[in-house]
Amino acid sequence: MSLNIAVLATGDELINGEMADTNTSRIAGILGAHGYTVGESRVVGDVEEEIESALCDLAGKREVVIVTGGLGPTEDDLTARIAAKAFGRRLVLNDEALAQIRAFFAKRNMEMNPRNEKQALLPLKSTILGNRLGTAPGFTLHQQNCDLFFLPGVPKEMVDMLEQQVLPRIQQRSGGTAPLQERILKVFGLSEPRVEELFDGQTLPTGVALAFGVDFPFVHVKLRASGESAEPLLDRAEVQTRQLLEPYVFANGQETLAGNVGRMLTDAGLTIALAESCTGGIVAGMLTELPGASAFFERGAVTYSNTAKHDWLQVPPEILQNPGAVSEACALAMARGIRSTAGSDLGLAITGIAGPDGGSPEKPVGTVFLALSDGQNEQVKGYRFSGERDRIRRMASCMALEWVRRYLNSRL
Amino acid sequence: MSLNIAVLATGDELINGEMADTNTSRIAGILGAHGYTVGESRVVGDVEEEIESALCDLAGKREVVIVTGGLGPTEDDLTARIAAKAFGRRLVLNDEALAQIRAFFAKRNMEMNPRNEKQALLPLKSTILGNRLGTAPGFTLHQQNCDLFFLPGVPKEMVDMLEQQVLPRIQQRSGGTAPLQERILKVFGLSEPRVEELFDGQTLPTGVALAFGVDFPFVHVKLRASGESAEPLLDRAEVQTRQLLEPYVFANGQETLAGNVGRMLTDAGLTIALAESCTGGIVAGMLTELPGASAFFERGAVTYSNTAKHDWLQVPPEILQNPGAVSEACALAMARGIRSTAGSDLGLAITGIAGPDGGSPEKPVGTVFLALSDGQNEQVKGYRFSGERDRIRRMASCMALEWVRRYLNSRL
Repeated sequence: MSLNIAVLATGDELINGEMADTNTSRIAGILGAHGYTVGESRVVGDVEEEIESALCDLAGKREVVIVTGGLGPTEDDLTARIAAKAFGRRLVLNDEALAQIRAFFAKRNMEMNPRNEKQALLPLKSTILGNRLGTAPGFTLHQQNCDLFFLPGVPKEMVDMLEQQVLPRIQQRSGGTAPLQERILKVFGLSEPRVEELFDGQTLPTGVALAFGVDFPFVHVKLRASGESAEPLLDRAEVQTRQLLEPYVFANGQETLAGNVGRMLTDAGLTIALAESCTGGIVAGMLTELPGASAFFERGAVTYSNTAKHDWLQVPPEILQNPGAVSEACALAMARGIRSTAGSDLGLAITGIAGPDGGSPEKPVGTVFLALSDGQNEQVKGYRFSGERDRIRRMASCMALEWVRRYLNSRL
Repeated sequence: MSLNIAVLATGDELINGEMADTNTSRIAGILGAHGYTVGESRVVGDVEEEIESALCDLAGKREVVIVTGGLGPTEDDLTARIAAKAFGRRLVLNDEALAQIRAFFAKRNMEMNPRNEKQALLPLKSTILGNRLGTAPGFTLHQQNCDLFFLPGVPKEMVDMLEQQVLPRIQQRSGGTAPLQERILKVFGLSEPRVEELFDGQTLPTGVALAFGVDFPFVHVKLRASGESAEPLLDRAEVQTRQLLEPYVFANGQETLAGNVGRMLTDAGLTIALAESCTGGIVAGMLTELPGASAFFERGAVTYSNTAKHDWLQVPPEILQNPGAVSEACALAMARGIRSTAGSDLGLAITGIAGPDGGSPEKPVGTVFLALSDGQNEQVKGYRFSGERDRIRRMASCMALEWVRRYLNSRL
């Protein structure tokens, strides 16, 4: 049985455009994965009349309303009080909520600020939704034909509470649905229009829906199906998609490019060292995001200056003079140098012009050279990336990681 | 005179969370800069009943409604037809719209696809809003006390139409407004409740509104005022706030911590070199975000292993043995070592346990030591940060940059 659901996000920084409302999309995504569609979503500011009006309106129209924000300890946090007013209930000190807040601080050997007590003032006849990750308990109440769930605005806390406490209650009310199953294949090296073009003339198994998303510079290919035969259908669709898009698929589901490169290095028992110039440490940061990086990574050099390239990587002064730091020759020397210095199996180097300054007619902004050395074979190539500084740095970082992934793939 | 404004975005990919609704935030930002506040914003899918219901509801409640999406030539593009139905008007072929669409294609020496004619079918008594950048003309109509503006979903086209055609009409209706002016002071080192607590008992100048935002680990303090005396009022409020929150204010407006540190280093004519272990290159990446970093930064070491700490930074093996890599002694040695190796004015080192593994009772996950050396004076301190791996790394990175900022501040 499907439910009539709305999502309401509150906060001045959301309505005035300052901050992106990521909570609403997250909620819609999680509900969607379980077979539920959201009918409408709304955003209002920290304005009493707007919040009250939205709560009353939605409670009258919908079966489930999920509200985020306004549960904090500051004066701008109005949700509980307004919910009480909107639904004609008294605002009372909820003992269970107060106990949870106290326990949260005690567990961390921290003092509870008196302001945090405000977070235990909830509408009469609310049920607490425990917050494992923060101070603000959420709460739920039933009004007319509607179940309203009030969650914190902090994304990690909101998601945890939604999955652990709200979803089961929703599922109980709806008697379960046919969860939507989804496979996400992540692609690097093809533009979205190009990926879409490749799917023209392809017939996916009946019952499998196709959608695309973009997370620059990656394209996400999403395959969805529901019902009992969802899994075998998606298996077939996934095989078909991989055949179509090889070798551009670098990850699936929640995997990341850096995470997969790290995993493949660990599995292969190989180590890598990095020499970064224009990317300034971004690649090292990405490779060390996941725990266990010390299995394959023991050092990286951010050689932003020519002197550093010479000192740490033994790039010869002649090369730095001509053809210069942004060249195939320099990238190669950097890759060999870091590999040798670190004693690692692989050496990866990135040198380029991130902009907006530093470009020339021969080497415009966006010119980046990558080099990869394994002691026996070497690979070096120049690119011309476009866009602004951060976009060029991000593109160069991802391309460098993709080089490593493809190298490791070729060894399998 | 202020106006009662709502924004409505339509599209399945928006309501199901696949795509971020950036149009609504853009609109709110542009309107905000001109002194207008949005009362509420809504998102619905490509569902007739939902779109119709939202249009009727908002037209009855608001003075201005801005609608984005659904003006394209495909079958999913329903907006014009549903607006006609919602407001009881016939859908008619609008000659001016058709002429504009034809002219758009002619100008580009392209054929008009017959599908594009659908884009000229608009509700009776609509006024065209010309689209300089795409095929779909927008349109506006007056219903009850409400002016509705229907804009394309393509962001570039939407923004252009909003600024060129919608804003002047809104300003005409409102007789102009007093643009809202805002100052944002960014704070590091105090929690949001603590910042709020400090404002208790403070009286800001009349007419200045105060709001808070959080962007972990930073707190944003926002001061707002409108009208002719906005600027002097905000000047006074800003002085008062800075006095209250010194020395925790690290930036204002769009400035960032890393950006300000870079600027201060450049102004002081000082250079810095980094030795990062658990932060894996994040600090170097932050410092090189803005152009011109080569003025103060020439190298950083990501010494993830003990061997690298010894090789590149000359950290003595005895220290790596005992008290170990995560210690005051090691952090100090790293800071001295990178400073000496790089020949920079300042050496900054970070070594710690980002987790989730690697902790012990004496040195739990989150234990991080920072050290800063300028050749004459040294500073070293241990912290216990909490949270997950990425949160610990982010906190350590920001604290390290804050150390440099405060050091540079003390020299002014």
